[in-house]
Amino acid sequence: MKEIKSHTNEYIKTLRALKKKKERDEAGKYIIEGMKTICEALHAAQEVECILTAEPGGAAAALAREYGVEIISVPYEIIQQIADTKTPPNDIACIKKQENLPDYGGRFYVALDDVNDPKNLGTIIRTADAAGVDGVFISNTSADFYGPKAQRAAMGSTFHVPIEVCELQDALKKLKSAGVNVLAGSLAGDYEIGVPLAKACVVIGNESRGISKEVQELADVLYKICIYGQAESLNASVAAGIMLYDVRRALGE
Amino acid sequence: MKEIKSHTNEYIKTLRALKKKKERDEAGKYIIEGMKTICEALHAAQEVECILTAEPGGAAAALAREYGVEIISVPYEIIQQIADTKTPPNDIACIKKQENLPDYGGRFYVALDDVNDPKNLGTIIRTADAAGVDGVFISNTSADFYGPKAQRAAMGSTFHVPIEVCELQDALKKLKSAGVNVLAGSLAGDYEIGVPLAKACVVIGNESRGISKEVQELADVLYKICIYGQAESLNASVAAGIMLYDVRRALGE
Repeated sequence: MKEIKSHTNEYIKTLRALKKKKERDEAGKYIIEGMKTICEALHAAQEVECILTAEPGGAAAALAREYGVEIISVPYEIIQQIADTKTPPNDIACIKKQENLPDYGGRFYVALDDVNDPKNLGTIIRTADAAGVDGVFISNTSADFYGPKAQRAAMGSTFHVPIEVCELQDALKKLKSAGVNVLAGSLAGDYEIGVPLAKACVVIGNESRGISKEVQELADVLYKICIYGQAESLNASVAAGIMLYDVRRALGE
Repeated sequence: MKEIKSHTNEYIKTLRALKKKKERDEAGKYIIEGMKTICEALHAAQEVECILTAEPGGAAAALAREYGVEIISVPYEIIQQIADTKTPPNDIACIKKQENLPDYGGRFYVALDDVNDPKNLGTIIRTADAAGVDGVFISNTSADFYGPKAQRAAMGSTFHVPIEVCELQDALKKLKSAGVNVLAGSLAGDYEIGVPLAKACVVIGNESRGISKEVQELADVLYKICIYGQAESLNASVAAGIMLYDVRRALGE
């Protein structure tokens, strides 16, 4: 097994730089953390450039051998420098970005309109995967789903669902042409749960400002989750979960 | 307006200590952050010991005058030391704990069985408030809802709903005696959505281990959220949101 001990090593420097979106975009690579997510990536035929492990006798070595992936033994301090958390897992990997774009022929989509919190972004992708969407559209004003916080929250779901970062209005117009109902989450809404739907796209807005005016104008219905108590609103990820499962059930199997 | 400039001031030291659960328990006090939450606390007739502000000319001063609450001007660095985040808001407050225990005569409850992540705990309390629960029962093995992360995520909802930290099995037994159906979220469940319910308590389990065996034995139904895609599971707060809204609707108005 190859070993790197120095944090001034050139390759380690390039990996450390991937914390920044600009560097991820230029290099076409990003970092994932933890054996479970690394397994998901390999299983989903993602191109894993290398695995870095602070536990050379551990499971990562066996996995790397099985999949023919390069593995490098490094001190835990180097893992800490590359990863985003103070106490990262012992194994991280560098992955090449791989496009898997949604087509417009499905029945169920989610669109993210300027969702800024990467943890919300990742959690919504995970929930969308669970709810069985055919694709995720992300406005190019939203957080980067390749970033470390989004990847951690997505728990591997970015490998499962087709995702496109795009000009959201264009995507919604195309979906509407394909007969998809656009349901925009909005505190000003009045959508009734339980109306059967043929095809639907749920739009989730910005954490403070909600859905943009332009997107709101494209919406077929404004969709409000009823507040029964005294809370002013719901957490964005929680609201997305409730809406996605409502719509999944309104679509039937 | 009183002013404290030194971070070695004795009162500031006691506030800084409130980051620890032990100190919060002994002092019977805790810290909340931000004008919105402070307003919520005052509005909900919580006993606010004092407001600390780094912006003595701001809205906190007017609010403190209106409610007759002591306000202290401090440098932002002192706010940073007492608050839990790197960039806290300009205003924080020290609140006295005030018991508001649920009774067993309601129709809708949520119980948290060893929920360890304070952010999940706070988010679930916020969602439970939105869904209109009559009370929240928290196992004494769960995170402390008076802690800073839970308070931030709860966004003032701890002032709105009755909450009891307790031996969870005892509380569930009392609820069952009062005719409340216990629905435990579990990946092993088979509960069907849409069955009308008279009275219900939703139990949310630990983030990794789920519902404890003892609690599972007390459950009338094991409640599973269907996974349609390839995600293995849902985030605990998202799952709680889906279940709470499902049950709220099954209870009717």
